[in-house]
Amino acid sequence: MGVYIEGMTSTQTEHPGPHGYSEEKQAYLRRLKRAEGQVRGIARMVEEDKYCIDILTQMAAVNKALHAVSIGLLEDHIAHCVVNAAHESQESGNPEIVSEKVSEATAAISRLLRS
Amino acid sequence: MGVYIEGMTSTQTEHPGPHGYSEEKQAYLRRLKRAEGQVRGIARMVEEDKYCIDILTQMAAVNKALHAVSIGLLEDHIAHCVVNAAHESQESGNPEIVSEKVSEATAAISRLLRS
Amino acid sequence: MGVYIEGMTSTQTEHPGPHGYSEEKQAYLRRLKRAEGQVRGIARMVEEDKYCIDILTQMAAVNKALHAVSIGLLEDHIAHCVVNAAHESQESGNPEIVSEKVSEATAAISRLLRS
Amino acid sequence: MGVYIEGMTSTQTEHPGPHGYSEEKQAYLRRLKRAEGQVRGIARMVEEDKYCIDILTQMAAVNKALHAVSIGLLEDHIAHCVVNAAHESQESGNPEIVSEKVSEATAAISRLLRS
Repeated sequence: MGVYIEGMTSTQTEHPGPHGYSEEKQAYLRRLKRAEGQVRGIARMVEEDKYCIDILTQMAAVNKALHAVSIGLLEDHIAHCVVNAAHESQESGNPEIVSEKVSEATAAISRLLRS
Repeated sequence: MGVYIEGMTSTQTEHPGPHGYSEEKQAYLRRLKRAEGQVRGIARMVEEDKYCIDILTQMAAVNKALHAVSIGLLEDHIAHCVVNAAHESQESGNPEIVSEKVSEATAAISRLLRS
Repeated sequence: MGVYIEGMTSTQTEHPGPHGYSEEKQAYLRRLKRAEGQVRGIARMVEEDKYCIDILTQMAAVNKALHAVSIGLLEDHIAHCVVNAAHESQESGNPEIVSEKVSEATAAISRLLRS
Repeated sequence: MGVYIEGMTSTQTEHPGPHGYSEEKQAYLRRLKRAEGQVRGIARMVEEDKYCIDILTQMAAVNKALHAVSIGLLEDHIAHCVVNAAHESQESGNPEIVSEKVSEATAAISRLLRS
């Protein structure tokens, strides 16, 4: 996984520039497409009165697939947005730029752990 | 939540009869439809280069929605398949009928906990 | 895993009789003792300024150990308390006895999934 | 949460210097002490044949307490070790210093999510 050393144009929550996950975008879209199909498959199993345990097995599979995407996005986010904020903090002498990004990322991790 | 006292026609893994979730089927289908839409929404966010943290927030939301369906299916499964197996075990004097169902349900819970 | 077919003396939340986990009690106590030691080991790692990632690896290990105990207790609970409630429901013709137990078990599973 | 801008003396896995969690050390030790007591309390509940569901409720509580410590350690790790590695990468022009730290942190998050 490559890491940008150059600063991003912005660290605001709403920013126009490329995100950390840009390079991996197509891979994420393929995996999300597959997860969407898995959820549709689960609905079909319910529709066709399949055995509950078999449905739950598929449910665990889609959870795993979505978690893998989340972990990937998180890695890209830390490698790009957090790292760039670290550089901006150093250049500007303002540690809050990076500490905000770190808190935000940690809050996202915490939400994933409880979801 | 109602519980069948009457035995099901079969306790085999592949069985044609109505499952525990039959009554709630439409509710599950609606919730799975919504979860499918949420996954598609996440793909759209990736496509449109939305902010990573906002995507992860949506990911936590879809995880929660899918977990709620899993918990519902599990409750229906225990209330119907496990309870019916308990009755069959008692009538036949064979405790293995229910202990197999219990092990199978516990394995499904364990997979969900790790997924 | 054996399953009692005989009814327990009580299905109340506060009941004096043997629980489903009675047979496995010593095994649970050993595993909890070990988990307690793991948590103490993590505290020692923090005390000795060990590397954060190594501490988090130990944390994942203790989570796994505690989950294994939870799954075991849950399996015993379903195999004994829920199954016995199923028998009582059938004998008394009151389906609420078992449906309450099932709801209670499902709520416990849901809390574990979110913890 | 404060963030060091100054580089740490080392980014190696085995390093003698202060870690990100140094400031919070006493708070972590108190929380781990309490979690250890909670695990011991669960063992006592098993010893005293308490109701399975009440034990599982305590289990969910200790999981939550340990997760809170993990999230705290992770936040400190990103805010210190990853951020310092970002600075070292920039100074040395070697992006691998930070990308290794990011991969390592993401692997730890992934282990927590599955534990």
